[in-house]
Amino acid sequence: MLNAPTSELISTLATIAGAVHEGDAIDPFLVDPRGITPGQAATVVRPDTPEKVADIVKACAAARVGLIPYGGGTGLVGGQMAPDGPPPVILSLERMNRIRMVSADESAIVAEAGVTLAEVQDAAEGVNRLFPLSLASEGSCRIGGNLATNAGGTQVLRYGNARDLCLGIEAVLPSGEILHGLSTLRKDNTGYDLRHLLMGSEGTLGVITAAALKLFPRPAATVTAMLAVPSPEVAVSLLGHMREALGDQITGFELIQGVGVAWVCHYHPEVSDPLADQPQWRVLMEVIGTDEDVLSEQTGTAFETAFEKGLATDGVIASSEAQRQQLWWIRETIPECNRRVGAIVSNDVSVPITRIATFVSEASEAIRALDTDLVINCFGHLGDGNLHYNIFPPMGVDKERFANRRKDIKHVIHDLIAAHQGSISAEHGIGRHKRDDLVAYGDPAKLAAMRAIKAALDPAGIMNPGAVIA
Amino acid sequence: MLNAPTSELISTLATIAGAVHEGDAIDPFLVDPRGITPGQAATVVRPDTPEKVADIVKACAAARVGLIPYGGGTGLVGGQMAPDGPPPVILSLERMNRIRMVSADESAIVAEAGVTLAEVQDAAEGVNRLFPLSLASEGSCRIGGNLATNAGGTQVLRYGNARDLCLGIEAVLPSGEILHGLSTLRKDNTGYDLRHLLMGSEGTLGVITAAALKLFPRPAATVTAMLAVPSPEVAVSLLGHMREALGDQITGFELIQGVGVAWVCHYHPEVSDPLADQPQWRVLMEVIGTDEDVLSEQTGTAFETAFEKGLATDGVIASSEAQRQQLWWIRETIPECNRRVGAIVSNDVSVPITRIATFVSEASEAIRALDTDLVINCFGHLGDGNLHYNIFPPMGVDKERFANRRKDIKHVIHDLIAAHQGSISAEHGIGRHKRDDLVAYGDPAKLAAMRAIKAALDPAGIMNPGAVIA
Repeated sequence: MLNAPTSELISTLATIAGAVHEGDAIDPFLVDPRGITPGQAATVVRPDTPEKVADIVKACAAARVGLIPYGGGTGLVGGQMAPDGPPPVILSLERMNRIRMVSADESAIVAEAGVTLAEVQDAAEGVNRLFPLSLASEGSCRIGGNLATNAGGTQVLRYGNARDLCLGIEAVLPSGEILHGLSTLRKDNTGYDLRHLLMGSEGTLGVITAAALKLFPRPAATVTAMLAVPSPEVAVSLLGHMREALGDQITGFELIQGVGVAWVCHYHPEVSDPLADQPQWRVLMEVIGTDEDVLSEQTGTAFETAFEKGLATDGVIASSEAQRQQLWWIRETIPECNRRVGAIVSNDVSVPITRIATFVSEASEAIRALDTDLVINCFGHLGDGNLHYNIFPPMGVDKERFANRRKDIKHVIHDLIAAHQGSISAEHGIGRHKRDDLVAYGDPAKLAAMRAIKAALDPAGIMNPGAVIA
Repeated sequence: MLNAPTSELISTLATIAGAVHEGDAIDPFLVDPRGITPGQAATVVRPDTPEKVADIVKACAAARVGLIPYGGGTGLVGGQMAPDGPPPVILSLERMNRIRMVSADESAIVAEAGVTLAEVQDAAEGVNRLFPLSLASEGSCRIGGNLATNAGGTQVLRYGNARDLCLGIEAVLPSGEILHGLSTLRKDNTGYDLRHLLMGSEGTLGVITAAALKLFPRPAATVTAMLAVPSPEVAVSLLGHMREALGDQITGFELIQGVGVAWVCHYHPEVSDPLADQPQWRVLMEVIGTDEDVLSEQTGTAFETAFEKGLATDGVIASSEAQRQQLWWIRETIPECNRRVGAIVSNDVSVPITRIATFVSEASEAIRALDTDLVINCFGHLGDGNLHYNIFPPMGVDKERFANRRKDIKHVIHDLIAAHQGSISAEHGIGRHKRDDLVAYGDPAKLAAMRAIKAALDPAGIMNPGAVIA
């Protein structure tokens, strides 16, 4: 059993880190971005070196006090929120915010956990390289949290998830030992890959304090297009067509439902839909190349044949960087507008790409069977099979009218996902909100192994207690 | 403590799998490819389903008998060889040799562990896709072993190591439970990544029985060139130059020392060196593109400016697929000729790319200081910072004359690698040959965590006992 921190422990933590947050200063750390569950904490400690993190972990381990590693606070599954149990210590990485190294020759950057994703992108750009991880909250999320939750985003199709971009990790293990793994090596087969074990463990196996990350050449040419498609099924065919034509130059392929764009235009009246007919379904795709003329010709031909085959019915190609950003802005603003409408249930799911169309049609039927008033806004990273399948009240209606439907909706979606060999958490993780779902839908052998590993590395259970596995 | 299998256990295993190998039939499984240490085993069992593998693991766990998962037997660090201790059971995956699924639309293939790498490549080609893992032993190594050891090879620069190509895994854990993780999903953040933990654990945490693997578009155009370079330092500059010109279209960038090619020509007199002046250093590079004319023009310009800048002094560009294969054949035949000369010490090391030139020159100096007769043959995957840095007697001299130098040579190389933040095992793994080196050079926190995980998942220590960690 864990304890609440004593005032003695809190003063030890203050001595280690210089100071701790108390009283109102804790409040900003207790806000869930989706407003689902308020958190609680005894204090917030903000160390600025891995050694101080290690001392904090050791002090909490000795006192059997829970510790929540805290990045940008943008996680959507309550991984950074402890709603119950003895109040934990929040360990904010915000002051570990140094870029320790960036090298074009090495195609690598070493950033501390508290550096924001946007700052990592900027530092890469500063040496004419690309750090491709890209997601809506990139201005405020921090790279340590991105790695701890294996963040996804819009460029996964070409560059992979956060874990695929990480070469090495420095972390403090629950024992208080520092794992020195900040290697920039592309090949290193010396024992178990603790880096990948820590990534995606959502702070339950240790605190990531810094990471070595892969950089890529910046694309010499980019083409961005928004295309109306008759259905999700045709969107999948369009992806296949584009892949045949363009190989793996496609970096992003997003599916967007009409209602999402309508809401963006409603809450941001200065914006108008780039597609005049406001289609029910559209895709936003991006393609990169090494030569502007060549890419323009290649994509031109690919778009043309797509239209001929009926894979797209309308479209706009960005003719400037400003237009490109405007198209992406619409996509990235959907989550904000969703929050304003207020979802009844949000799902972050994935299925094999060949099952997407079937899933979307079966899910829509099942939701309508529950209540014809329910509104579906389905959007996401089609190229990765990852859909944000969110259920809303009609605009203007209080979502609490549907509160008693929440459980049924979740069940319907998760059962369909299981039937299609999908994942109930594609990119957001398990946190605390999906912990029971993991038990209900997870592989028993996997769960048993996870519990054994957690008990082996964190016998007192101090690291992010209550997250991922109980 | 482990036991030798009783005759009762062996007959149980025979009942599970249909039969077991006894007597002489075991011998082929006891041969180390480098002839360093002969193995020993009580029997070889060859199940053909994951359920049978699970029953075998359970039977051995109950009897506390060691089990060695065995793929193609091509591992170079003794991971498949138990030279001492109670004779183990060898669990050969060779009869788990089905391709369960291959899909161009899903860009994925599901192969059982016993499928050879070449068979996976062929099945991918059959649906017009590429499985890019490529290495010298691809005709005989098996995909389960490739994943268990996180194999590298010649295409890592562009496509990553074996682990980067794996979407999902089916495995039998030391408990005998089957981990059902054969997902083809690109995004799945449901709990700890056991897939990456099993990959690279060299059979010490479980038996991989099948894997879902990523497929890629086949490149529409390929350019392969062998270029003479003045030094390894210039080779690194050439790589930088080519990257600036060609982005991440470069799929392979191999460094080759003259002596390696001389030995290939010596043992294969029908072959002549494609570079007339037989340079001391050369690179073999491959570039892919989506259009033949475009790529040819792009690479032509890049080569031209490389020559102008003195980054290459001579070269040949493959003008046909046959010529391309001939250039790669020379590279891939170096290990075979090395074995015929007989290395005193073989090193599979990596360093940050910016340290390669310094490492090569310092290592060469240190080796010559030990004995001026020693011959160095250094070659490898420069683009990944991965060098095979092997030390030989002069041709025709018995390597045993230098047996007393072995320890010093190893020390000199490993200390230099440590000084340059490199890895003492870049792609071959730890196995049994490098187990003590891992303890000597590994991070203490990492070693402690590895031991805790091993004890948690395999408390009886039956899985590949003696490999990776004692």
